[in-house]
Amino acid sequence: MSTPEQAGTNQTGQPNKNSVAVKFQKWWGWGDEAAKPYAVADKPKFPTFAMENLGVDILSKELETPSFDDLDVPASQLRDDLRAKLVEVIGEQYVATDDEVRVIHAFGKGVRDLVRVRRGQLDRIPDVVVYPADEAQVRAVMDAVLEADAVVIPYGGGSNIVAALEPEKGEQRQVVTVNMGRMGKVLEIDEHSCLARIEAGALGPDMEEQLNKQGWTLGHFPDSFMWSTVGGWIATRSTGSQSDKYGDIADMTRGVRMIMPAAPGSAERTDVLVLHPLPSYSSGPSVREMVLGSEGRLGIITEAWMQVHKLAEVREIQAYFYPTYEDGLRAAEAIAHSDAEPMMLRVSDAAETQFSMANGKKSSKVSHYMNQAVQRVMLAKGWNLDEICISFVGFEGSATHVRYTKSVVSKIVKANGGLGVGKGPGTLFDQKKYDIPYIRDFLLNIGIPADVSETATPWSQAEEIHTKTVAAAEKAFAETGHRGFIMCHVSHSYHAGACQYFTFAVADGSETSMDTYDHVKRAVQQSFIDCGGTVSHHHGVGEEHSPWIDQDISPAGVHMQRKLFEGVDPGRNLNPGKIVHDGRPGVSSNSSDA
Amino acid sequence: MSTPEQAGTNQTGQPNKNSVAVKFQKWWGWGDEAAKPYAVADKPKFPTFAMENLGVDILSKELETPSFDDLDVPASQLRDDLRAKLVEVIGEQYVATDDEVRVIHAFGKGVRDLVRVRRGQLDRIPDVVVYPADEAQVRAVMDAVLEADAVVIPYGGGSNIVAALEPEKGEQRQVVTVNMGRMGKVLEIDEHSCLARIEAGALGPDMEEQLNKQGWTLGHFPDSFMWSTVGGWIATRSTGSQSDKYGDIADMTRGVRMIMPAAPGSAERTDVLVLHPLPSYSSGPSVREMVLGSEGRLGIITEAWMQVHKLAEVREIQAYFYPTYEDGLRAAEAIAHSDAEPMMLRVSDAAETQFSMANGKKSSKVSHYMNQAVQRVMLAKGWNLDEICISFVGFEGSATHVRYTKSVVSKIVKANGGLGVGKGPGTLFDQKKYDIPYIRDFLLNIGIPADVSETATPWSQAEEIHTKTVAAAEKAFAETGHRGFIMCHVSHSYHAGACQYFTFAVADGSETSMDTYDHVKRAVQQSFIDCGGTVSHHHGVGEEHSPWIDQDISPAGVHMQRKLFEGVDPGRNLNPGKIVHDGRPGVSSNSSDA
Repeated sequence: MSTPEQAGTNQTGQPNKNSVAVKFQKWWGWGDEAAKPYAVADKPKFPTFAMENLGVDILSKELETPSFDDLDVPASQLRDDLRAKLVEVIGEQYVATDDEVRVIHAFGKGVRDLVRVRRGQLDRIPDVVVYPADEAQVRAVMDAVLEADAVVIPYGGGSNIVAALEPEKGEQRQVVTVNMGRMGKVLEIDEHSCLARIEAGALGPDMEEQLNKQGWTLGHFPDSFMWSTVGGWIATRSTGSQSDKYGDIADMTRGVRMIMPAAPGSAERTDVLVLHPLPSYSSGPSVREMVLGSEGRLGIITEAWMQVHKLAEVREIQAYFYPTYEDGLRAAEAIAHSDAEPMMLRVSDAAETQFSMANGKKSSKVSHYMNQAVQRVMLAKGWNLDEICISFVGFEGSATHVRYTKSVVSKIVKANGGLGVGKGPGTLFDQKKYDIPYIRDFLLNIGIPADVSETATPWSQAEEIHTKTVAAAEKAFAETGHRGFIMCHVSHSYHAGACQYFTFAVADGSETSMDTYDHVKRAVQQSFIDCGGTVSHHHGVGEEHSPWIDQDISPAGVHMQRKLFEGVDPGRNLNPGKIVHDGRPGVSSNSSDA
Repeated sequence: MSTPEQAGTNQTGQPNKNSVAVKFQKWWGWGDEAAKPYAVADKPKFPTFAMENLGVDILSKELETPSFDDLDVPASQLRDDLRAKLVEVIGEQYVATDDEVRVIHAFGKGVRDLVRVRRGQLDRIPDVVVYPADEAQVRAVMDAVLEADAVVIPYGGGSNIVAALEPEKGEQRQVVTVNMGRMGKVLEIDEHSCLARIEAGALGPDMEEQLNKQGWTLGHFPDSFMWSTVGGWIATRSTGSQSDKYGDIADMTRGVRMIMPAAPGSAERTDVLVLHPLPSYSSGPSVREMVLGSEGRLGIITEAWMQVHKLAEVREIQAYFYPTYEDGLRAAEAIAHSDAEPMMLRVSDAAETQFSMANGKKSSKVSHYMNQAVQRVMLAKGWNLDEICISFVGFEGSATHVRYTKSVVSKIVKANGGLGVGKGPGTLFDQKKYDIPYIRDFLLNIGIPADVSETATPWSQAEEIHTKTVAAAEKAFAETGHRGFIMCHVSHSYHAGACQYFTFAVADGSETSMDTYDHVKRAVQQSFIDCGGTVSHHHGVGEEHSPWIDQDISPAGVHMQRKLFEGVDPGRNLNPGKIVHDGRPGVSSNSSDA
């Protein structure tokens, strides 16, 4: 990355993405340009898997890297007075109207986002991207935005997949995106209280590196970890893969600061919400919990006091197999209700288990996840190898604690017909856990849009929501006339229930692929709601899920959210149209077969 | 208690407190009339303790039971049209304007409440008390209230101590208090998901009895347990003594239903908020967390899906002594950061330890909490017996888990200079844990107002907030010219910090005792805020703590709460004046030396 000192400008002399010491993803896909793409040549079994499940010969397909020059980028509508104000408060170098920068900030990284940007469907993109250095600059930017009656959209790592980063369709006002990338420091650590004060723009790896150096970890590892930030996690109510031990972001966020519009009658245009760090409190409806999940609708989060943990003495991930997903679910429920407290409890269904085994690097008769001896044991038990399900259980803590917890888990696995296969597969899983988006991008390149949707239910509905959602997706695939594939895993466990995380793909590379995708996506989301699940467990609402929000939290709940948004942001200047739609049809609800 | 079948009416033929099968506390103190008062005769050491610490000869004092006949009860302002409507929707028997019923519902059970009611300071009391049987009746009552532009105040067990149950001073509109006591059933249990659907009016003991019969427990045991309800716990963001294992009420409340005003433009006047039970979710700012702590400002909670646990195989409370409170705090912090997960972790400061030992029943040279052998060990270690601190740690779970957890705790206690003294004191503590309010009432009878205030801080501020708050109280005592006493314990532990629970008493039985009390109370609360604590950890805000709320959650946070309240309740019909003051000075802020 360039530093400001090395900074270049583009041909017009305007700041571009190399002008600031901020990390960017590429405009057309996940990760930065240096990231290695998914290497299908290394995965000898994947072409067969893709042919069997999607009917696509992935090796015959030509991969193209999209060319930025093909895009017709709408001109910035930033007016001179607002530009002058922004330059005054933040410096010329950090006020970018460069086309590539604006396109990068136009969307998140959902499959719909990638399709739109690659096709040049740049309906309404930000007019300017600013990079504040500190809270005072964030406040000055919001002052300027409110004074100009513009729109402000906060931007962290850019990995949002629920259309929470884009301006509303038809937005007539100027749109200012605030990239928080320069605010990435761990500012202080309160060792007694296990609290770290962290700037909102800190990207996952950079933050963990700063914490780890001092012996600490946040313990928050969402799949987006490489390209998401503390502020983004808070704004979307994120949950990481180790939440069974460390909690979700709502549990971790103990104090927070946010720039927001001031109360009417105030001498200032903006105010700073200051929630000092507290382990718990009883001070009316939780303002902290209003900030969590607010997706930019209430303000811009500048920093937070996060609960951190000492790096664990022992960390290991054990793998188990079950003869069926139902056995795995039953075991997961029992583990969640036991005294054991693993840091991760993951059970893949049969389809996802097959997918994982097909993604093995080395060519061998059996997957790297399972050796021949294990396979013989399974066959001897009468298991159907097409139905087996892999489970990963993570353990962290003192050696004694890990030993104790493992023994509790091991008994439950056995009681539910499971089979332990040791640490090998878990180690591999751990190494590859952030690679899925690259497979997604590869599939999109060859005409197979793939996406993820997750939900949470009480344990009593866990099996049903899986069965019905898979059936709903299969029906939707059939209705579109395209081959499709859906797989799922239990990703997070709680005393009262679990999150199940679905991944689905449709073999439609045509111009109308998003209609096909929408048809399936809608079937999946509606199945969640119909089975008592939530619209989203940890990806958030944005515009993408807002059509279902009233079925999730009931119209009265939406009314409460709406009144909060209207009250705090009467001018609709703060990322309008997200979460609550205000009657305007959303991206996902206004597609052709809605 | 009378049942409806045995119901009587008073001389005027109107329903009275015997007309409904609902449990009532007495109008002038804690508990019902059958409750045994604090028996000072059984506590041979307490008179000496009171003389030494408060300069009061408690045995010379005459105890008087207040007479209801001495009260001058304001007439009900209920108008015929609203009465007719309420009778129509809920039945004549359940619409009470009886003086005693209205006085019982006029206040909670804070010391200020008891002083006011005993002195007949009945400024503005409810005009009518209704007892709905189900959610439909709650909704019909709220419809009637909104139609009449009246005020509605929900009422659970009546044990609130933050002035959240009373009408605003000078309220001109009719005031309807809704006693939820007829809605006390555990409606269903989802065994797989460990979720119980419980009506909001269920009192602690009645609810636990219903759950226990089926092998379950909520695990929520606040000091108010005997006289508080599920709906009240949710509305105040309550925390129970076993929260270290079971979580606070926010953790337990997975789904909730609430009757609230409908959105403008709706065909109906009211709506039902329906949040179905979920283990976690990412559906925008948490509406569930808006309901939690809302103290009647947003609606009336009718039922909730609560997370429950199987009754534990083993339950025990171990006692430990530390040479000083600082040692105890350090050990508590280490336990909270360890792999051990006790269900309770309590450390009393030296003053509270002395108080507890002075409350022993049997006369002996040493307290029932400590035998002579233990005392000899302490002396041999060079401990100052005036500075020792008792700690109770509770363990629950499987026998293996309890054994493991106890061994972890035991090592930490030893490493911090503590001394284990076994289960005896803990068993006694467990038996007496709900008795403190009776001591409070006894002290008030003899002219010693006593109260409790609790706060939470990060661990790094735990010692300082204790030292400074005790000092602030001592200074305030001196300023009032009255003897006073303050004591404290760690009541709830978290990874990031702890709640400390202060009890204080002032030996002022004069007519101006509430000014004296206010002076001390204000010093205590301000110290909380100045030391980075919250205004309340689990008692709530009401009117009592609202003067400090902007210093706790910052003016911007109050602005967010206010906008939510104004948006949902534009007519200020729902328990107005609680949490956010709307510029009107509160009970505690308008006393004479404010």
